[in-house]
Amino acid sequence: MANPAIAAVLVDWGTSRLRLWAVDGAGTVLGEARSGEGMGATEPRAFEGILEHHLAELGAGPKVPVMMCGMVGSRQGWQEAPYVEVPARLETIIERALPVSGTPREVRILPGIADRSVETPDVMRSEETQLLGLGRMAGNGAEGLVCMPGTHAKWVLMDEGATQVSGFATALTGDLFAALSRGSVLRHSLSGDAGLDGASFDKAVRAAIDEPARMLMRLFAIRSRALLHGADAAHASASLSGTIIGQDIAGALARFGKPERLTLVGGGTLGALYARALDLVGIATDVFDGEELARAGLFAAAVRVWPDMFATAPPATAANP
Amino acid sequence: MANPAIAAVLVDWGTSRLRLWAVDGAGTVLGEARSGEGMGATEPRAFEGILEHHLAELGAGPKVPVMMCGMVGSRQGWQEAPYVEVPARLETIIERALPVSGTPREVRILPGIADRSVETPDVMRSEETQLLGLGRMAGNGAEGLVCMPGTHAKWVLMDEGATQVSGFATALTGDLFAALSRGSVLRHSLSGDAGLDGASFDKAVRAAIDEPARMLMRLFAIRSRALLHGADAAHASASLSGTIIGQDIAGALARFGKPERLTLVGGGTLGALYARALDLVGIATDVFDGEELARAGLFAAAVRVWPDMFATAPPATAANP
Repeated sequence: MANPAIAAVLVDWGTSRLRLWAVDGAGTVLGEARSGEGMGATEPRAFEGILEHHLAELGAGPKVPVMMCGMVGSRQGWQEAPYVEVPARLETIIERALPVSGTPREVRILPGIADRSVETPDVMRSEETQLLGLGRMAGNGAEGLVCMPGTHAKWVLMDEGATQVSGFATALTGDLFAALSRGSVLRHSLSGDAGLDGASFDKAVRAAIDEPARMLMRLFAIRSRALLHGADAAHASASLSGTIIGQDIAGALARFGKPERLTLVGGGTLGALYARALDLVGIATDVFDGEELARAGLFAAAVRVWPDMFATAPPATAANP
Repeated sequence: MANPAIAAVLVDWGTSRLRLWAVDGAGTVLGEARSGEGMGATEPRAFEGILEHHLAELGAGPKVPVMMCGMVGSRQGWQEAPYVEVPARLETIIERALPVSGTPREVRILPGIADRSVETPDVMRSEETQLLGLGRMAGNGAEGLVCMPGTHAKWVLMDEGATQVSGFATALTGDLFAALSRGSVLRHSLSGDAGLDGASFDKAVRAAIDEPARMLMRLFAIRSRALLHGADAAHASASLSGTIIGQDIAGALARFGKPERLTLVGGGTLGALYARALDLVGIATDVFDGEELARAGLFAAAVRVWPDMFATAPPATAANP
């Protein structure tokens, strides 16, 4: 069953999801797998078995090396790959790829990045690999601010020709939306998938950016408008979303200043909402798909760590000649 | 069993709690009852039976009138007492006390207050009765800003010698704290009753007021400090509390301006945290107990509606001669 064309397997192993791509020596995807066997629900002893099961299904023989990123490298994961500290050169991420011990197969885990300062402590795991891919795909063009929406949105400042993360900040965005939707009085106003009420979203974004101090009052007003004016679930959902995304953007501008354009990682519905909100405040966006970036980052690391497995030299970019 | 000294029974019937006080003609409390039979879990047909059960236990005969406030007067309650709109004279609250129909006993429900404007829609039910009591207890001294912490904190502007509510705003504070504590990544950092880490609380309050835009980043930083610096649950709890209370205060100052002193309704732990936070930004507080105010407001309404039941004329105050 082994496919001799497979040069490496790339793995993004997060808290709730596992994704694998088998690639050939040129980086072409020969097969992929997705599973809900996230690191959060996996016992330390079970990681190897889960990985080998998927590798066998993909047809990866015992000599095929595996490059991984994500929470699999956290203290609660398989083996801990200690954080690289800011300012963090993305090449350092590759140099510090942790060789997993105790496995006959060559398996490495890319480390995350930490800011250990007292004022702005922060951590990332898996985004650094997307940023590595971004540097490979966009080169110098990715310099400046990068917005990575999600459960915990990351805002990242890339410099040195997009080869270095000089600072970043995480915001409690998607997590806050979910907690309020499920666990606060707003749940009464937010029933089901409501579609986007664009005007309500835009109004909430502008209000959050114009006057971020009043966030908690605007959150309750979503409920009051339902009670007093019969505002519907589409309005409530768009207002909550706009309030949180607007507050997130306000925080990023306060921390990093306002750019004319930025790189937005996220091609889906959430990415579209961020693009719309950023456009409202006059910030243009270059959009990249997060999964593609992760794969590009993992591939770049694999090529650098195991050059003999790959037909091609590391791809040259303006930033990495 | 009937106690002939009982002139009226005062009732605060909220979503999750029911409280009753039997008072004599001078307002002295002769007996009280508390129960978890909140309006939220009560069928419309069950209200009268629950009330009569407690009245019998208190020894209130069939001629004793009952003055109520709270969510019992909402659309989902016993009978709807339509909101009085801002600017709302507190005497109007009494004049519009809704006579409950279909009961042999004289029972009235005080209405709440609404702001139906498009820009700042808002509602209150039960706080208006506390404000009525405040006007009776503090007179002119209660003019200006009133802070009423809770699941949904109210900020109220009283004018005309504290006889009128000219505006108010509700913030999603306690509800947000609970939703984040239970339903976000912060739950991992907030185990159990941690006690107060005062320095962390103060720092979070100051940061929220100085730079309210960065709230979502400060929320995630609570988690990062636990991961990177081993910050404990006491730190996390105080930081979350300070971040939310600070943001609440920042919103109130943005909406109503900054007073030198204000009236704080809430004598417990939460009230003490607000007093501490307000002191940090140079705002002095006059503290009143919410339950006492509710009773005083209900009593003032009962005296006005049923003067023959009471030995005393309505208490004179500077504001209500």
